[in-house]
Amino acid sequence: MMNGIPTHIGIIPDGNRRWAVSHGYQKKDGYKHGLEPALRLLRAARNHGVKELTYYGFTADNCKRPKEQVEAFSEACEQAADIIKREGAALNVVGNIQSPCFPKSLLPYTYRRTEGNKMRVNLLVNYGWEWDMKNGWASHDIPRMELIIRWGGMNRLSGFLPIQSVYSDIYIVNDLWPDFREEQFENALKWYRKQDVTLGG
Amino acid sequence: MMNGIPTHIGIIPDGNRRWAVSHGYQKKDGYKHGLEPALRLLRAARNHGVKELTYYGFTADNCKRPKEQVEAFSEACEQAADIIKREGAALNVVGNIQSPCFPKSLLPYTYRRTEGNKMRVNLLVNYGWEWDMKNGWASHDIPRMELIIRWGGMNRLSGFLPIQSVYSDIYIVNDLWPDFREEQFENALKWYRKQDVTLGG
Repeated sequence: MMNGIPTHIGIIPDGNRRWAVSHGYQKKDGYKHGLEPALRLLRAARNHGVKELTYYGFTADNCKRPKEQVEAFSEACEQAADIIKREGAALNVVGNIQSPCFPKSLLPYTYRRTEGNKMRVNLLVNYGWEWDMKNGWASHDIPRMELIIRWGGMNRLSGFLPIQSVYSDIYIVNDLWPDFREEQFENALKWYRKQDVTLGG
Repeated sequence: MMNGIPTHIGIIPDGNRRWAVSHGYQKKDGYKHGLEPALRLLRAARNHGVKELTYYGFTADNCKRPKEQVEAFSEACEQAADIIKREGAALNVVGNIQSPCFPKSLLPYTYRRTEGNKMRVNLLVNYGWEWDMKNGWASHDIPRMELIIRWGGMNRLSGFLPIQSVYSDIYIVNDLWPDFREEQFENALKWYRKQDVTLGG
């Protein structure tokens, strides 16, 4: 942590389907409206000196949803990967690659690399906490998150990296993810600065 | 879950030291003021039909604190165990027994038992998430928690049962634990009933 800015922030971009329904769209149409927020958040975080971001893309459990939704969030994750690369960040995709639900186009990014001073961005794709634990902590390359920001109003982790989140401060934004505004992120950073971080001591 | 009442609730009773300081006591004197709240919460939960409670007693990391504090929270946990037994609940103490910080008087309660229809109460004593994980999920006898209630205003898990908390809804009480009131517990139950529980689906 530098100057009260967390080194590594986890992002739970929840509420895409609720947003779609409330705007008269089909549920599956919500995901693509979450892409521009992901780009704007990445830039805001980089401007603040955040070194690493982890986005909760989709989980193995999410793949049990109707086919058109699965296709829509898989495609959104592939596009998110493109956006992250285009921004010049070091992309690391983490999830169970041995299942048909993992998009093959993302296979080249499933190894953590050091790329100079680039910002690191991890994208969880077909991730599952059970898969993570059963494989001897498969996600261990991802370091601990000091701050987790969740959009969509729920105060829960929903299986998001159980080990890396043990000491995370959790900030909840009531707005849905497609309604992302930079101000919400700023408020999360301000709130975090006021927390008394003890790391279990 | 029955009638919107969670089967199993986790309790993080934080704020004893802050409460002590704000009342002009030494930090170590806060813990004993957390005992009556633990009893009143147990009774309130039982009255609502909650089948199982897990109290976050103290952690292996907490044992690095000044000696008088370690003695005070160890003693408070031994007294809490007495209170739980006296209430007729099935007590299960979970933590690393192979360390001098584990109170020997609690050794007889480190096995989960079925005792008829008794309410189950788990007490984490000298618990550590690293110990839990390194020992192949040592706490696996404790089932998943639907709801976690944390007193003291922080929104974080602080290493509390990483696997059992993956889908838990987390309710934060801003008051400190020694200022427990039944109304806070009632509000947590009301809040929980309004959550859309999806278990990752």
